[in-house]
Amino acid sequence: MQEFIRKFVIEELDHDFGEIPLSALDDAAIVDGIAFTTDSYTVKPLFFPGGDIGVLSVAGTVNDICVMGAKPLALSCAMIIEEGFSEEDLQRIVKSISLTAKSADVRIVTGDTKVVENGAADGLFINTSGIGRRSDHLDHNIQMVRRSREFKPNWPNDSSVGPGDTIIASGSIGNHGIALLSFREGYGFDTVVHSDAKPLNSLIEDALKIGGITAMKDPTRGGVANLLNEWAEKSHVGIKISEEALPIDDEVLTACEMLGIDPLEIGNEGKVLMAVVPSMADEVLSTIRSRPEGRNAAIIGEVSKEFSGVMMETHTGGKRVVEPPVGDPVPRIC
Amino acid sequence: MQEFIRKFVIEELDHDFGEIPLSALDDAAIVDGIAFTTDSYTVKPLFFPGGDIGVLSVAGTVNDICVMGAKPLALSCAMIIEEGFSEEDLQRIVKSISLTAKSADVRIVTGDTKVVENGAADGLFINTSGIGRRSDHLDHNIQMVRRSREFKPNWPNDSSVGPGDTIIASGSIGNHGIALLSFREGYGFDTVVHSDAKPLNSLIEDALKIGGITAMKDPTRGGVANLLNEWAEKSHVGIKISEEALPIDDEVLTACEMLGIDPLEIGNEGKVLMAVVPSMADEVLSTIRSRPEGRNAAIIGEVSKEFSGVMMETHTGGKRVVEPPVGDPVPRIC
Repeated sequence: MQEFIRKFVIEELDHDFGEIPLSALDDAAIVDGIAFTTDSYTVKPLFFPGGDIGVLSVAGTVNDICVMGAKPLALSCAMIIEEGFSEEDLQRIVKSISLTAKSADVRIVTGDTKVVENGAADGLFINTSGIGRRSDHLDHNIQMVRRSREFKPNWPNDSSVGPGDTIIASGSIGNHGIALLSFREGYGFDTVVHSDAKPLNSLIEDALKIGGITAMKDPTRGGVANLLNEWAEKSHVGIKISEEALPIDDEVLTACEMLGIDPLEIGNEGKVLMAVVPSMADEVLSTIRSRPEGRNAAIIGEVSKEFSGVMMETHTGGKRVVEPPVGDPVPRIC
Repeated sequence: MQEFIRKFVIEELDHDFGEIPLSALDDAAIVDGIAFTTDSYTVKPLFFPGGDIGVLSVAGTVNDICVMGAKPLALSCAMIIEEGFSEEDLQRIVKSISLTAKSADVRIVTGDTKVVENGAADGLFINTSGIGRRSDHLDHNIQMVRRSREFKPNWPNDSSVGPGDTIIASGSIGNHGIALLSFREGYGFDTVVHSDAKPLNSLIEDALKIGGITAMKDPTRGGVANLLNEWAEKSHVGIKISEEALPIDDEVLTACEMLGIDPLEIGNEGKVLMAVVPSMADEVLSTIRSRPEGRNAAIIGEVSKEFSGVMMETHTGGKRVVEPPVGDPVPRIC
């Protein structure tokens, strides 16, 4: 499907409009100073340990705006509801949307509801789109990058990662996908893994205030493996990460081993990866770690011009190429 | 469902943010000078006489932006695709999206694709959200209103219809809903009715250049009956229309009579109703009529402070109260 989108949809549409256009396939477009993004949420089941589709649909779209260096201004919320869907469940989900929006200081300003007959949808699908304005701290952030080296982009994006950058992960990876998968399939692991779904705008604003960030992205579908490969490809760099340094919770690691899933390929919904100029990396890291949602943040790698693609130094000291996932290893987790 | 949304969703959310906030339940919100709207399209079937879900999903969202007096800037496009959906059909639909967007001079700048398993969705659902900027001609339009009377709103909206305003319909009503219904149910009428789905931004820009428009709205779900009742309720006025003056194509009228459906309650996707100060109404009307998509435009009624609700003078000279439709008379037409 991604192949189809790249080849057909993007080509067919007028794809070079805006500062960050459709053809960039980034987390949000930037048009006339406005960050604009959309996501449809088809997660199954609708309620899961640590969250529900309401939390997800606000957090996911807020995060796609703020990784561009924008401050979320408003969201839309459109629901496709299967006839007979429980009104009580809908109320719970709307409450989640409301609470998550409040926690992110963003408002739902427009919406739509379509009811389709029984069997025409799987309970509930939610689309949220979002708009945002340039963060007050983005100019400062870019100035701090420019103290270290030449940096042209006006917005951090997938193509603006540079050789020498330090890669920071804002916390443990794999929790959302494993939470969904183990709950859905009823694997009954000893410890219940909770989703990390959460808006990251405050954490990101704090990091921008420090500055030196050249790119940010949340490792959702396809996980860290997909994210790093997108950066490597679009920024024409190589990225080396260290398996040792990757923050992964024990129960997630255990689950991944039992299920034969690579934690790098699992989607997250409350984590962000940042590329930062090395001189600022420690300060950005400690700022992130001072927040509860960033307490497990770690430096996981660095960017090089010596090779292309993504490479991992393994626990045993070996080297492994990290490929982008083929297909969707865990379907319907967002 | 509308009852539920009014009572629960709006109350639960922080609903008074923006110039035209969520609580206004208008066609688009206005936030920080940006018009912002969303719609999910669940039309069945996906292809129908006169259009397809691609045309609809661009036209519907473009129209919701421009009825606020805004110029569409960019759209998002998010697809939920059922596994096994025909790639050929998807290509046709993407081509429709592309052509319709070009005809409306608007770009798709961001998107999302989710594939769900067979049986979890009905082929294809599309969400488009849209953003727009204040039209260059809106200030002039409002100035022309103010020549006739006091007018405070900064944007035309559902609450800004005033006593004495003339109501203009931009063309024949009922075509989209009857096209969908008769094609879907295979009624086999002698004449095939075609959907009117079409972006109206050029027509609306032309009308704003003339000026004097106090409100605009496209009669989609619930048709003209719903639209006029929303205006009457939100603007605290009465609206009187003339059955004689209503532009309705013969084949639509015949179909409505055979099916026992009120043409006032049928959704349209390429029509707009305008409330205009009387001194400007003729000039606005002739401007609309000079465009192909507005050639059947007509003055259909006027606004009064003498009563509340919506009233129609019938062919026979009687009077009939026009109620808002109960439920959705024709499901899944958009």
